Amino acid sequence: MQKKKKFSRESLVTMTELVLPNDTNTLNNLMGGRLMHWMDIVSAIAAQKHSNRIVVTASADSISFGNPIQLGNVVTLRAHVTRAFNSSMEVHIMVSAEDIPSGKKVDTNRAFFTFVAVDQSGRPIDVPEVVPETEEEKELYASALRRRQLRLVLAKRMKPEEATELRSIFYPDEALATAEADTKAKK
Amino acid sequence: MQKKKKFSRESLVTMTELVLPNDTNTLNNLMGGRLMHWMDIVSAIAAQKHSNRIVVTASADSISFGNPIQLGNVVTLRAHVTRAFNSSMEVHIMVSAEDIPSGKKVDTNRAFFTFVAVDQSGRPIDVPEVVPETEEEKELYASALRRRQLRLVLAKRMKPEEATELRSIFYPDEALATAEADTKAKK
Amino acid sequence: MQKKKKFSRESLVTMTELVLPNDTNTLNNLMGGRLMHWMDIVSAIAAQKHSNRIVVTASADSISFGNPIQLGNVVTLRAHVTRAFNSSMEVHIMVSAEDIPSGKKVDTNRAFFTFVAVDQSGRPIDVPEVVPETEEEKELYASALRRRQLRLVLAKRMKPEEATELRSIFYPDEALATAEADTKAKK
Amino acid sequence: MQKKKKFSRESLVTMTELVLPNDTNTLNNLMGGRLMHWMDIVSAIAAQKHSNRIVVTASADSISFGNPIQLGNVVTLRAHVTRAFNSSMEVHIMVSAEDIPSGKKVDTNRAFFTFVAVDQSGRPIDVPEVVPETEEEKELYASALRRRQLRLVLAKRMKPEEATELRSIFYPDEALATAEADTKAKK
Amino acid sequence: MQKKKKFSRESLVTMTELVLPNDTNTLNNLMGGRLMHWMDIVSAIAAQKHSNRIVVTASADSISFGNPIQLGNVVTLRAHVTRAFNSSMEVHIMVSAEDIPSGKKVDTNRAFFTFVAVDQSGRPIDVPEVVPETEEEKELYASALRRRQLRLVLAKRMKPEEATELRSIFYPDEALATAEADTKAKK
Amino acid sequence: MQKKKKFSRESLVTMTELVLPNDTNTLNNLMGGRLMHWMDIVSAIAAQKHSNRIVVTASADSISFGNPIQLGNVVTLRAHVTRAFNSSMEVHIMVSAEDIPSGKKVDTNRAFFTFVAVDQSGRPIDVPEVVPETEEEKELYASALRRRQLRLVLAKRMKPEEATELRSIFYPDEALATAEADTKAKK
Repeated sequence: MQKKKKFSRESLVTMTELVLPNDTNTLNNLMGGRLMHWMDIVSAIAAQKHSNRIVVTASADSISFGNPIQLGNVVTLRAHVTRAFNSSMEVHIMVSAEDIPSGKKVDTNRAFFTFVAVDQSGRPIDVPEVVPETEEEKELYASALRRRQLRLVLAKRMKPEEATELRSIFYPDEALATAEADTKAKK
Repeated sequence: MQKKKKFSRESLVTMTELVLPNDTNTLNNLMGGRLMHWMDIVSAIAAQKHSNRIVVTASADSISFGNPIQLGNVVTLRAHVTRAFNSSMEVHIMVSAEDIPSGKKVDTNRAFFTFVAVDQSGRPIDVPEVVPETEEEKELYASALRRRQLRLVLAKRMKPEEATELRSIFYPDEALATAEADTKAKK
Repeated sequence: MQKKKKFSRESLVTMTELVLPNDTNTLNNLMGGRLMHWMDIVSAIAAQKHSNRIVVTASADSISFGNPIQLGNVVTLRAHVTRAFNSSMEVHIMVSAEDIPSGKKVDTNRAFFTFVAVDQSGRPIDVPEVVPETEEEKELYASALRRRQLRLVLAKRMKPEEATELRSIFYPDEALATAEADTKAKK
Repeated sequence: MQKKKKFSRESLVTMTELVLPNDTNTLNNLMGGRLMHWMDIVSAIAAQKHSNRIVVTASADSISFGNPIQLGNVVTLRAHVTRAFNSSMEVHIMVSAEDIPSGKKVDTNRAFFTFVAVDQSGRPIDVPEVVPETEEEKELYASALRRRQLRLVLAKRMKPEEATELRSIFYPDEALATAEADTKAKK
Repeated sequence: MQKKKKFSRESLVTMTELVLPNDTNTLNNLMGGRLMHWMDIVSAIAAQKHSNRIVVTASADSISFGNPIQLGNVVTLRAHVTRAFNSSMEVHIMVSAEDIPSGKKVDTNRAFFTFVAVDQSGRPIDVPEVVPETEEEKELYASALRRRQLRLVLAKRMKPEEATELRSIFYPDEALATAEADTKAKK
Repeated sequence: MQKKKKFSRESLVTMTELVLPNDTNTLNNLMGGRLMHWMDIVSAIAAQKHSNRIVVTASADSISFGNPIQLGNVVTLRAHVTRAFNSSMEVHIMVSAEDIPSGKKVDTNRAFFTFVAVDQSGRPIDVPEVVPETEEEKELYASALRRRQLRLVLAKRMKPEEATELRSIFYPDEALATAEADTKAKK
């Protein structure tokens, strides 16, 4: 049976938040934990839109904190599903902060969260495949496999020597052929 | 000048939380974002205790979500600084959840957060070195370098071929000598 | 001196929220007060984007509550500035709610909020004029004058007989000429 | 069968709140959205007391924001049901703010909210009539019909020419007779 | 110089709250901590009204929890200053809960909090004396001295044998004369 | 049948919190109500750990507020069950606050809360006895009876002349014999 497919852009979610006093630390900057809370919500909605299912957070990684976000800033979070693996989905989140009176807008954070779609009794259930269209979507789709292997290796659920995509970062030459083969085998 | 040193255990922080209705999703499980908010606070306190400084979140990675944590559970978070690199500190967080009436307690999550110590004007400032004592502390101290290289490679601030510790996961043999040399050079 | 002008779409803000347990009443529906809190934030951001100023809420009216919004729904709020009058701006807010597993999406609420742009010492300050482009933006721009007169009459800051635009709802014939004249005089 | 009647004062509710840091915007003033949240709760309780039923918010209008309310102020909200129409009730809310150390107290806001009484399955259910006693209660009772027509006209659920009470604002003479007739017919 | 006096009723504050999901524990009852938070706010406002000063919580005692308060209940808190001692004030708080659909209202809790009035630099400052009028106010005024001695004895800031009022609970006969003398001496 | 026994230390719970802006009053100090909310949670967990049951707050008393706790401070709460009486348990809570950059740590508060263990239908159910080990645990175990009598007397559920332990504070000599007898009779 042919598996259902959906475009990356169909799961795109935009969330806008205003940094209020109760979101800040003693330096008047947005607290990391508060931002992660927003990231979790926006990416869960993206995963829900892709799968039309209830989803549960499976992992969060590579959350970088660049420029501090200040009290009164408008924060924009954009999330979309980069790629699906059976019942799991990787979501990419981009965060920018804007000081509206000065008109200054900067990219501040990015992160990857993964979610698992579940049925009413909480059991994992398959989700549609992702079809990337733009250059950025394609790049994120391709690198998703590498990040997935990294997660599995770090969680000790995959042996390093099996992580062919990941090895390719270090040994680009040997990786070319095997990575492709691996990708096909997974489908 | 000799750099100040502190034991791992000096930064240990224990935080206990009760999962209340406003912390849960529609499945009555603790929301991932809420847990990350708690992780951010407990690990920031650990980093503050190690450095006696104000700290800002620099990155959060490898947050795994295993067993779901349920409404009414008691959540215990334990955090300590694994290793310091100039002004940055890596903090390891272990989370367990307990259903007290049934007496069932399970490890549910672990994560690594990094923080940067700053002075009053927000500039990075050096922190003491970490001295691990137990087996687990030593293991986390040793592997901290590998995780740091991984963060730098993923953030494109280090070339993969320079990440000698990281390569050692894939090619254990070649790594032995170079890794040691690298560690010494860093000090 | 020529007054600055900005397009309606330049102030458009999209905000996405997930209805969590702490947002609901005993019927498991989103509480009206919580929704108004979100409306206030999304419309304040729209007014900030139009004026590049700090803004304060001046009034909120015509908030209708149609279909109840349920726990677990994804709520989307869209706000843009319909028209500016010296230092005040009217913002139109559309709210829709989506039950993602069933794929059902309904428009649930709309409202008009007005904001005043202020300088650092809290004094009102002029804002750019609004240039509507689409049919909907034009209709909202035109009817904004009527709603403004209604607000002024209800606040007893305008005599009913001076509210020419508003009278036109009840006596379309007499209104035609006077309304146009009034509009020109206001500019 | 005779419909049950209750006095206006039987639904009076007083609510007192202290403006805390997490209630304020970057100017240290109470956020509009937070105030509306309190208004919704106090007026819902008034409607519950009048109807002895679960109630749902139907509309909120004419919320005016006069003097800003500051951090540390004590806010007093007073709400009572002005008039009932079948299953719906209009609630009037008066808000004042007090700076206790200086002893300065000012009226800051007023608003009208409407609620619908529902049974356990969420269906509208009739509520008692309101009997006003004081001058202010009588004035609010009388003008409630006008505000109701305004809401219906704005929601396009009543034709402007049928809104006889509303027209009377603009054409006091013609309105006298028809308005009275209308009121009787509604009963 | 004559000390300023104020009536008990001048400090009376009424606060009404609706028990929402985020206020409850896993039994759907209002959490004790949430109620104490409301008690602290309502009694701080009462102490502010009596003293026209900033006040800080000094102690909270004898908080009893009788009937559980349920989700959806309307909670009414009434607080007034019972008696002042130099810069400190004792506040009595009565709490009742109402299940509006069933019309059932019960007294659920009472408590005594003490506050100290402070100036801008945080130093204690004298407050007006309290003049009780009703029977209940007089009874609370009289017994305030006994409760104060109890607090001082428990805090080891008064020797048990000096707590003449307190002893009178156990040995009514001997207490009569000494208590009166003590009361006069304190003035 | 022999009643189950547990050591004091088995119920020990440590909770760490960071004072954030939304926890403070206008003096930038931790609000009393917020601290009591934390006390309620940490002591409820201690009572749960001792009884392995759902618990409800029965009373809170002798909450003293010493040094103010400031924004940015790390607050540590330590709670353990001091003694059990049938279905009720007394919990002792110690609070300290630490200004980490300056390394200053002070004890700020202590309190006693009592909880009742209940079964699924909310009925009181017996809990294990407490076995104190350290000097401090033994002192708190012994004095728990006195505090319990004080609570019962204040709640008018015990006559003062029956409160033999309590009388002993005022008349140490007569108390010796009777107190011991009373303790045995209770078992």
